[in-house]
Amino acid sequence: MSEEKNSVKILVPATSANCGPGFDCLGLATTLCNELDFTLLEKKEVTAEVEGEGAEDIPHDGENLIWKSAETVIKRAGRSEEFKGAKIRMKNRIPVSRGLGSSSAAIVAGLFAANEILKRPFDKNKLLEFACEIEGHPDNVAPAILGGFTVSTMEKGKVQSFSFMPKINLKLVVAVPDFQLSTSKARAVLPENVSRRDAIFNISRAAMLVAALLEGREDFLKTAFDDAIHQPYRAKLVPGMEEVFSAAKNAGASGVALSGAGSCLIAFALEKNHLENQIASTMVETFRKHEVNARALILDIDKTGVKTA
Amino acid sequence: MSEEKNSVKILVPATSANCGPGFDCLGLATTLCNELDFTLLEKKEVTAEVEGEGAEDIPHDGENLIWKSAETVIKRAGRSEEFKGAKIRMKNRIPVSRGLGSSSAAIVAGLFAANEILKRPFDKNKLLEFACEIEGHPDNVAPAILGGFTVSTMEKGKVQSFSFMPKINLKLVVAVPDFQLSTSKARAVLPENVSRRDAIFNISRAAMLVAALLEGREDFLKTAFDDAIHQPYRAKLVPGMEEVFSAAKNAGASGVALSGAGSCLIAFALEKNHLENQIASTMVETFRKHEVNARALILDIDKTGVKTA
Repeated sequence: MSEEKNSVKILVPATSANCGPGFDCLGLATTLCNELDFTLLEKKEVTAEVEGEGAEDIPHDGENLIWKSAETVIKRAGRSEEFKGAKIRMKNRIPVSRGLGSSSAAIVAGLFAANEILKRPFDKNKLLEFACEIEGHPDNVAPAILGGFTVSTMEKGKVQSFSFMPKINLKLVVAVPDFQLSTSKARAVLPENVSRRDAIFNISRAAMLVAALLEGREDFLKTAFDDAIHQPYRAKLVPGMEEVFSAAKNAGASGVALSGAGSCLIAFALEKNHLENQIASTMVETFRKHEVNARALILDIDKTGVKTA
Repeated sequence: MSEEKNSVKILVPATSANCGPGFDCLGLATTLCNELDFTLLEKKEVTAEVEGEGAEDIPHDGENLIWKSAETVIKRAGRSEEFKGAKIRMKNRIPVSRGLGSSSAAIVAGLFAANEILKRPFDKNKLLEFACEIEGHPDNVAPAILGGFTVSTMEKGKVQSFSFMPKINLKLVVAVPDFQLSTSKARAVLPENVSRRDAIFNISRAAMLVAALLEGREDFLKTAFDDAIHQPYRAKLVPGMEEVFSAAKNAGASGVALSGAGSCLIAFALEKNHLENQIASTMVETFRKHEVNARALILDIDKTGVKTA
């Protein structure tokens, strides 16, 4: 078997989960992508060359998350006898452990790459199911697979994800602090219960956010990105979070949110206002006032999700 | 001043709040309407003639909710010296204290009637604000004013309501038990806190419901009407609730919910399937097995909200 036949080059997007009120259910894909050359091997050997973000942290062997996810597809497709290893070359642009879905990107990359090489035994919904099994929740893997803005529900372990492109053209301004924040640490600070009032706060805003984005109604965005059930508890893990939020809003952002479990903060800006650069510098400066070094990324919403390059 | 000039004939719709996951924020207007002849009087005298639902219960004097709401508009418009009373004739079709927004209908009728007679000093958004001040929450008054399906958020007492007509044609099947359920009693059984898991359950479904209805995606409706934060607690107040829900679903309903705070139950059926009559009889029969006498209404979603007849 030639290696070429069993190779694929893919792009997988960074994602931002929660989007304010949509804890564990809303997410979006961004135009920041990891690039992979992925080859399935007959021999039982896994190698991973990593360039860029996370080059030091990512396992280069059989423990690599991309390979482990690819293995899921190979097993479910009943092709384990044929393919026992992989050669992976990554150009990573997604910062690791910052709330931009780097692990979801790895999972989705592995699933998608193996599925492509095996001539698509599974459709995107099935890959989404596998991805949720591995990741535990759909909010990052859904947009990484489907692209756009996603709404996901879980019912007895079964996921449904609805993807759409907002009718409001948004620029995403992401402030990336130079410290990592593990999802498990960010989950540990959350209480098991929330007040009914706070639950209603988020229910109404998540519904309003989806309505406003689907119908292109900027006037309804104003409070739609706000959250009461996770960000207030996580503020202590991201020094200056509230101040960066205020600064971004004052600079013209339509909404602000903790990206996933952090540490990144994301601001949503109307493209037509051309304020993204100002918002970006304000966010970085405000972080600096709280002794956090951060850089800013200005991104768009990705339309397609994971794809062959 | 002639009486005729100061008279208006209006129609105000019954509404169903919550729609499953959207506690205190989602609502819809139905084609079941109360009809009113409303006349503002110079003399300080309020009379109310009531025909139909609630004829015995509704105050016929100055305590009448329609008049008190009309008075709000008169006062805010600075016309209290001119108009001190009203003559109201109602043909009521909205059952009282059953979760179909009869008090919201009264509030909206009074506000709208006075506003029309005074030549519209206030727009619909302002009337919505007044209505929320009187009612305390927007989930019934918003659809009564705006029509359609509504998503509402409250921010420091300020309400924003987004109204739309679903792209899925739905028949509403409402089972109306012969007992009343006061909203305060139905609120008293709710805990102050809910688990984060249940909050996420509702957040994801409310967002999914809005997405599915706006984009006409029936395939995403399946679990979108489900709720975890109020219906389970209120089940004990409506004997047979869960069984009526199951029966309606088995008969083909796409979703089921407690209408507002009850006692009505509402099932959502795809118009194209023509199953509304079957769903209606099943719901009534299942209620009967639990010794509840109920009748069924088959309604559509009202497009316009309160209007002059």
